[in-house]
Amino acid sequence: MSENPGVRVQRAHLEDFCSKVFLQLGMTAQDAKDSAEILVAADARGIASHGIARLRRYVSGITTGVMKPQVQSEVVHRTPLSFVLDAKGGGGLSLSKQVMQEVIDTAKERGFATAAVRDSNHFGIAGYYAMMALPHDMIGVAMTNTAALGIPTFGRDVLFGTNPIAVAVPALHQPAYVLDMATTVVTRGKVEVYEREGKTLPAGWAVDSLGADTSDATALLEDMLVQAGGGILPLGGRGDSLGGHKGFGLAVLVDILTAVTSGGVFGRSVMDSERTSARVCHYFAAIRLDMFRDPLAFRTDMDRMLLEIRSARPAVGQERVYYAGLKEYESELDCTVRGVPLSMACWAALGKIAQELQVALPGTV
Amino acid sequence: MSENPGVRVQRAHLEDFCSKVFLQLGMTAQDAKDSAEILVAADARGIASHGIARLRRYVSGITTGVMKPQVQSEVVHRTPLSFVLDAKGGGGLSLSKQVMQEVIDTAKERGFATAAVRDSNHFGIAGYYAMMALPHDMIGVAMTNTAALGIPTFGRDVLFGTNPIAVAVPALHQPAYVLDMATTVVTRGKVEVYEREGKTLPAGWAVDSLGADTSDATALLEDMLVQAGGGILPLGGRGDSLGGHKGFGLAVLVDILTAVTSGGVFGRSVMDSERTSARVCHYFAAIRLDMFRDPLAFRTDMDRMLLEIRSARPAVGQERVYYAGLKEYESELDCTVRGVPLSMACWAALGKIAQELQVALPGTV
Repeated sequence: MSENPGVRVQRAHLEDFCSKVFLQLGMTAQDAKDSAEILVAADARGIASHGIARLRRYVSGITTGVMKPQVQSEVVHRTPLSFVLDAKGGGGLSLSKQVMQEVIDTAKERGFATAAVRDSNHFGIAGYYAMMALPHDMIGVAMTNTAALGIPTFGRDVLFGTNPIAVAVPALHQPAYVLDMATTVVTRGKVEVYEREGKTLPAGWAVDSLGADTSDATALLEDMLVQAGGGILPLGGRGDSLGGHKGFGLAVLVDILTAVTSGGVFGRSVMDSERTSARVCHYFAAIRLDMFRDPLAFRTDMDRMLLEIRSARPAVGQERVYYAGLKEYESELDCTVRGVPLSMACWAALGKIAQELQVALPGTV
Repeated sequence: MSENPGVRVQRAHLEDFCSKVFLQLGMTAQDAKDSAEILVAADARGIASHGIARLRRYVSGITTGVMKPQVQSEVVHRTPLSFVLDAKGGGGLSLSKQVMQEVIDTAKERGFATAAVRDSNHFGIAGYYAMMALPHDMIGVAMTNTAALGIPTFGRDVLFGTNPIAVAVPALHQPAYVLDMATTVVTRGKVEVYEREGKTLPAGWAVDSLGADTSDATALLEDMLVQAGGGILPLGGRGDSLGGHKGFGLAVLVDILTAVTSGGVFGRSVMDSERTSARVCHYFAAIRLDMFRDPLAFRTDMDRMLLEIRSARPAVGQERVYYAGLKEYESELDCTVRGVPLSMACWAALGKIAQELQVALPGTV
């Protein structure tokens, strides 16, 4: 969500602007359109950290040649149910959409399909690709490894990224279940927000270069930048008393499924440089509901489950209980009516890009 | 791990005792042998909460007729890559081993296979079934839902079980990566240990009937028993500031993959009665490494990853960094030499069962 009051822009107008920027950077018309759609979907779903605020990374990445807008990716392994792609530094967004589409097409025919991608770039929200499976009576899965910033249980040096896991499962009348979670407690973006606002970090988010609790956002970000030690904790926090070893285990699982499967880069070798993002690896899968049951029966039971969750009694002081994907669905509905919210900082950054690349900024709502 | 100094018994002798108990309870020789092996594997891997300490549950379950030792399970759905089984209240242990074996056999032929089981019983450690895939150059997956004891994010009533996720991935020379994690912060067994020892619960483990933090193990266990509200928190703790919504999301995912797939019971309807365990649902999958890469290359990269983790600098005050499955592997090695450790309480309980069923207790080491 935006930190401060900002502006709102019609979703289609924001996508159009973003697409024109990508066109200017040398993408094909289709890739520019797809990439814009995926980035803006993050903003619409209330995950601004992974949305159009990252457009600058693409401008830098493509300008410096680290991201290659039109490179030819190569299938390096193929079976009837799977394939592995070398992205060769291509853009993560449109390429990942194509890969997931092929996974879905194969699953349509065979019931299940999976793919891994190496040497790719930032792909936006993992949930976007998992959700592509929903209209096809399928469960969708997407993961990516990311630049190392996470501290292993009992450790002090970064060893893995935020390594998100997304799984989308269709229901009948209820909005779909869409889990889209970093396997770290928080992302770097959240720490940066705390730094900008001069707030101390909550206990359980991060450790310093000795592996001890830290609440100092500025020192943490500096330590992480120069890899002095210190970083963000896995889901479950420091040590193993609250299950930090489980979050760490999940982060490693994502590294295995994305990078060991694809022959890509994992662990502490996945590193951003000062000017560009790390090359990363992705994982995708889709499985048809009728591998298990009649899809209508499956979806009907999903509705029963999701309604049970939504109607659960809230804790004292809380308004309601919700399931994964419900808030994001509501955010998308809201954006359809009121436009997509952008922070003033993001809006200013877009203004700068618009000027540099001679693309007209969209109007605000 | 055992709470108190106890005894040690040779693994084979413990399995033999356990197998004879199951035989007395009416299992076939093969089912008794398999079930014993699976239960004792938990003790050998240092997960005593899921081991032979649960033998009493089987005695009660089978005696009261809730667990049916020789019921005929039924395949209710089948595709070339998948099947769904109605266990009809059969024993979870040996049945689950047979299901995972069939999943592996199908994956050998087709690259991937999956199965869901409904109306089953406690199946021991999920990791056992995931690990069955390891010798076959496959990744193995196993999950189960369990009796509801977990509180959804922002809620106050139990809505899901410990719902463990296990994934096993083979390496080359390094012990395999074996994630086997409850999606709650802790299991009920841990809370019971705190109650017995009169210790207050750490913050972040559980909430009371209003959904507020609680440190009172006795009140919590009573509230959970009568479903007054209150229960154990998902991985990530209370609220969403430390990612509790992620642990909750994972618990729901396990309920979907085990119960919605199989047409079984999920959510708060999965309930233990006073004398017996709840009927539960399982999920299994296996995928061949060569769906992605040459297995030797895959395993070699796994070794690189696991060695990077093992050799990571520990935090000040910590001895070492380890990966999922490493401690459990070391525990198994230790048990081979020194015998399987059992707490005095467990040993006494086994003595009582031995007497009731006229089976000789094994000697201690």
